[in-house]
Amino acid sequence: MITAVSNPRVKQVVLWQTKAKERKEAGVFLVEGFKMFEEAPMEWIREVYISTDALAKVTENREYISIKKKLDQVVFEEVSAEVFRKMSDTQTPQGILCVVKRPSYGIEDLLASENPMLVVLENLQDPGNVGTIVRTGEGAGVTGVILSEGSVDIYNPKTIRATMGSIYRVPVVYAGNLVEVTELLRKRNIKSYAAHLAGEKYYNECDLRTGCAFLIGNEGNGLTEELAAAADEYLKIPMEGQVESLNAAIATSLLMYEAHRQRG
Amino acid sequence: MITAVSNPRVKQVVLWQTKAKERKEAGVFLVEGFKMFEEAPMEWIREVYISTDALAKVTENREYISIKKKLDQVVFEEVSAEVFRKMSDTQTPQGILCVVKRPSYGIEDLLASENPMLVVLENLQDPGNVGTIVRTGEGAGVTGVILSEGSVDIYNPKTIRATMGSIYRVPVVYAGNLVEVTELLRKRNIKSYAAHLAGEKYYNECDLRTGCAFLIGNEGNGLTEELAAAADEYLKIPMEGQVESLNAAIATSLLMYEAHRQRG
Repeated sequence: MITAVSNPRVKQVVLWQTKAKERKEAGVFLVEGFKMFEEAPMEWIREVYISTDALAKVTENREYISIKKKLDQVVFEEVSAEVFRKMSDTQTPQGILCVVKRPSYGIEDLLASENPMLVVLENLQDPGNVGTIVRTGEGAGVTGVILSEGSVDIYNPKTIRATMGSIYRVPVVYAGNLVEVTELLRKRNIKSYAAHLAGEKYYNECDLRTGCAFLIGNEGNGLTEELAAAADEYLKIPMEGQVESLNAAIATSLLMYEAHRQRG
Repeated sequence: MITAVSNPRVKQVVLWQTKAKERKEAGVFLVEGFKMFEEAPMEWIREVYISTDALAKVTENREYISIKKKLDQVVFEEVSAEVFRKMSDTQTPQGILCVVKRPSYGIEDLLASENPMLVVLENLQDPGNVGTIVRTGEGAGVTGVILSEGSVDIYNPKTIRATMGSIYRVPVVYAGNLVEVTELLRKRNIKSYAAHLAGEKYYNECDLRTGCAFLIGNEGNGLTEELAAAADEYLKIPMEGQVESLNAAIATSLLMYEAHRQRG
């Protein structure tokens, strides 16, 4: 049991919570809460920390039986309430935190399936938006998400939280050059659509049943001209009133679910 | 020009930024930034504060010509950079802040139009979600939004920011008892749909061309049993993978845009 906040393992976890570079070098990310622990693929779990309170709750309550079973199959470390608060990124921690190995997908993994549905995010900055897109993407049956390197860290604790577990199941890939990505997509007969005010067609007028990729731009500035010009087609979402744009996660969700609807 | 943070008007603005009760009693809310100033209905504007820097920018740059014109039509108060930072709710303020009179809509205003499309939010807590629903709602042509009194304050600065100006154009009403609201809707032939896992029909299988209202529950707990039971029909959004629910703003947006699609 760890009771000292000065413990080197505690210090290491805090570093991973706060420094993207440290997380990347170690090839890990952190997840918190019972749901995230329960859904974590067994072979991804590296370390598990549980507070004394949370451990008692899990041991004593029938409703935590699945958590208890999973705990029995891993090596975990009990920590004091004070230590857990130190390690946690949340204000009201549930008392369980795991260090998880990052999956290593490449772009080819996303292109291998038949008629993939992809989302390509250019310089998205809001962790909540990106996490929500991954979560909604799983719901809509997306094949994977491609992020420009200028985007927020998908392994940021806030992003991870917003994915609500979908991070375990939706492949996410970073790419250095999204224009090159569109060229690769074109070679594979995957049509890239820029969500753009200059779109001629409404999103539900495009045939999204075959391979498609939605290019989504930064929250404030939209797509760069370079990437917009590289798209095969522009599409637009109708907007009533004086609305000039939709939130990036909302727009992406509407497109993904329209593709889902068409694919029946 | 105000240069002292101890100025009583500055203190009053800070109170309105931070205390929902103070805002309510005065019947006002605060908006920040050029876009929010530009879109504010003239007759709603009570006070305008602009920092020395922002005023210089507006006066010297042609791209702010519409802001300049609007400033010429109102009484505004120049304040020092330090005072503006004190009054602002944002980390990188644009340098313009207005005190705006609240609109006073009643439920009857929402029912007066033909075939209204309404959103009924029960105990939503996330200001970003509620603001985004109002913004997307304008885009989808929603008639209005009804919030339970246990929901977040629509006039919270974070909510206002997330509406991106739609707060000026989408009627929002608080209601003490949402079950009674559904009864009122039924009398007016407006069908209420609960977004619910127990839904038998998918959302795009319901006829949303006539008067409809979407009941959306709290982020963590969903709809209360009472309100779900009061709905005319349950509908569901298809979800692939292991997704158990969607973010409240995402789910609401999918429903509103499906109604928009059907209404052509």
